[in-house]
This record gives sequence, structure tokens and C-alpha cells, in this order.
Amino acid sequence: MPKRIRLDKAIVTENDRLAAELADRYDRDGVLVITLMSSPGAGKTTLLEATASQLASRFRMAAIDGDLATDRDTRRIARAGMPCRQINTGGGCHLGAAQVGEALDAYRLPDLDILFIENVGNLVCPAAFDLGEHRRVVVSSTPEGDDKPVKYPVAFRLADCVILNKTDLAEAADFSAEAFRAGVRDINADLPVLEISCKTGEGLAGWFQWVSEAREALGPPAPADE
Amino acid sequence: MPKRIRLDKAIVTENDRLAAELADRYDRDGVLVITLMSSPGAGKTTLLEATASQLASRFRMAAIDGDLATDRDTRRIARAGMPCRQINTGGGCHLGAAQVGEALDAYRLPDLDILFIENVGNLVCPAAFDLGEHRRVVVSSTPEGDDKPVKYPVAFRLADCVILNKTDLAEAADFSAEAFRAGVRDINADLPVLEISCKTGEGLAGWFQWVSEAREALGPPAPADE
Repeated sequence: MPKRIRLDKAIVTENDRLAAELADRYDRDGVLVITLMSSPGAGKTTLLEATASQLASRFRMAAIDGDLATDRDTRRIARAGMPCRQINTGGGCHLGAAQVGEALDAYRLPDLDILFIENVGNLVCPAAFDLGEHRRVVVSSTPEGDDKPVKYPVAFRLADCVILNKTDLAEAADFSAEAFRAGVRDINADLPVLEISCKTGEGLAGWFQWVSEAREALGPPAPADE
Repeated sequence: MPKRIRLDKAIVTENDRLAAELADRYDRDGVLVITLMSSPGAGKTTLLEATASQLASRFRMAAIDGDLATDRDTRRIARAGMPCRQINTGGGCHLGAAQVGEALDAYRLPDLDILFIENVGNLVCPAAFDLGEHRRVVVSSTPEGDDKPVKYPVAFRLADCVILNKTDLAEAADFSAEAFRAGVRDINADLPVLEISCKTGEGLAGWFQWVSEAREALGPPAPADE
């Protein structure tokens, strides 16, 4: 469908323009922005819940959550202690830079160290829409199968970090971490893969370390000015 | 993004026109067409493998498989005994009626009783694109969580049947079948939910029964004319 491709290019170009503005704003305000992308149910929200409870003493954090419908995830994240703003896409398959720009009105960015953006559960479309973020994280989970990197290469190609969640289910799901890692290596040999279980807590320290290093790479947090 | 919505409507309208042509062709040729839609890794391919091996003696079946990349699923389905034709979308998030129409050239439809179309792994976009099918099946799986119907209502609203796969992992995944069924009921009280495990074989008889009844509803298969 060449017609489709032409139209999408125009939309992506307009999104890119807005995303560049967002990127400038994040840098000016000194906030690290990390986006999370995954299939439905891979564990993005659970990861943010764990992050909220474990890193709250070190960083001032907030989140934006995109879903087709309901504010369930936002309520979960907020209950865990991280302020969260819901975007309902009303059926839309990804977040766009314009939607994120509007949701940012909920926060005073210079007061934040880290902003997480949880995209709509979809391993395809969000990869095409830049949100101006500093880091992109793909969350995959063992029950989805170890062939996901080779079958959904675009998401993995654009990622800065891969979280492999639900390691507690790996054996029951006949999941091969070796096959998964080989698939990731074929796409990007430098992409870190962090094996975790949000349920048991296994490997979460590695994720917190990765987040802390990404924050350090951006420079020291701005001092509170009030 | 109102611009996006306008553009998509034009594309969907053109797709609907082609889908109506496909629907006429399926009816003329007397082949039942069932599409499968799900998140990545919910078990569409595994379900077709089981269907191939169990229903081959009763029905002449074939499949079309959509993926962003690789022909892994097509090879798996073919190995299980069901002829399968691959469509690689090259990053595209759903199958369109034009792509299906081209892939149909691989088959002589009057020689088939049932054609399965496995869509790209995506619980959002495929719901917007009619493929002229007789029946739509949504495959969900317990590790994705019991909140998927309420969080991705469009897919469930348009479905004729919901397969709840990986019941063998339900307990380990803290999955509540009651919560899942309540979510489905809120969207469509008449929608059947078939709980299965492709791994253990539990519940598969109910799926084979549903397929057989859908085939019977279309009328008797045409006699082979050669």
C-alpha cells in the first residue's frame, strides 16, 4: 500500500518536529526522559511500580502513561508512589509527541530528575514515533517467546536497553534466554539485555543501576530553586 | 491528532471496499475464512499447529500468515501439515485486504473448506482493518494479565470468539479467569471464551468444536469438482 506509506511519512515528519522541541525542553529543564515500549502485558507498569518504591529516595520521578482505555495503570503507578498522568488514546495505537507535550502540563519539569513515559502496549507502532526521549527501553517477557527480537526487529533496533521480564516463568514457558539474546545480538550487538522478574525481584538491581547511570550521564540534577 | 484520523479513515474506506470483494469471493468459493488476532506471543501459531494436526482428516485447510519479518511461523504451520503462505509487512502493523487478496493467488479457494488468516502480532491496529472474514478470533494468554479485555476493548468488541490460551501458566501468572471473563462480558455478553492450553492440550476440543460449527453454519463444503 504505497499510499499508506506516503501518508505515514508526513505524519512522522510532523511528529519528529514536535519531538525535537520536546527534546530541547527536556534538556533545558534537566530531566532525564525514558520511554518504555512493549507488547500488551509484558510488565511495563509493574516495572514502574517497582521503580517507584525502590528509587523514590534517590530521584524525584514522575510518569506519563498511554492506554487505549481506562486509567488502571496510572492508578497503579500512583499508588506505588510515583505521580502519573494518564493519556487515553481512544483506540490510537501509540503515543505521539503532541499528546506527550500536552500531558507535560501536569508537571513542573525542572522539579523532576526522571520522567518515565509508558507507551501503549504495542510492539510495532510506537517505534515509529519519536517522543524526544533520552533513552528507549523495550520490555519483553518470557511467555511471549524467545523469537520476539527477530520477529519484531524495529523495536529492538531503536532500543537502548532490553528488559527481559518474567524470568520466573521462563522454564514453564519453554523459553531459551540464549535464543533470545542471540536474536538481540543479530540486531544490535551492543544492546544490553537485563533479565529480571518483577514478581520475585530477581535482577531488579541491574535495572536500577542502568537508570542511575543514565541519569548520571545527563549530568547532576539541577538544585531545587525554591 | 485530527489530521491522522482523517487520513486513516480514507485508508480504512479503501480497505473496506477491497474487503467486501474478498467476502464475496469467499462466499462464492464456499470457503470459511477465520482470522486470528492477538498480542505478540499469545499463541496464534501454536493454535494453528494444533488445528492442522487435529482437523486435517475432517477439513481441507490452508493459512495465510502476516509478520513484520521472517517466515518462521509459516514454516511451523506448514511443518504441522497446513499449507501456509507468508506475508511480510516490512514493519507494517496489520494485514490489509489488498495484501490478503494477493496472497490468495497461492490457493485455489474452491478446493478449501477453511482458510485461516494469522494477523501481525498486535492487539490494536488489525481490529481496524476488515479482511472480509466470516469469523474473527482474539487469542489472549494468561501471562498478559486478566485486564486485557478492558484495556484493549476494540479487539474484543469486534471478535466472534475469544481464546484464552496458556491456562497452564494461569496460577504462576496470578491470573484470574473470573476477572478476565467479567471484562469480556462488559464488552460483549454473548462472546464465547474458550480456555485452552496449547501446551497440555486442555480445552482444545472446544476450539475444534467451535471451528466445526462455524464451518457447518456456512453450509456443506462444495464437492470436489475434479
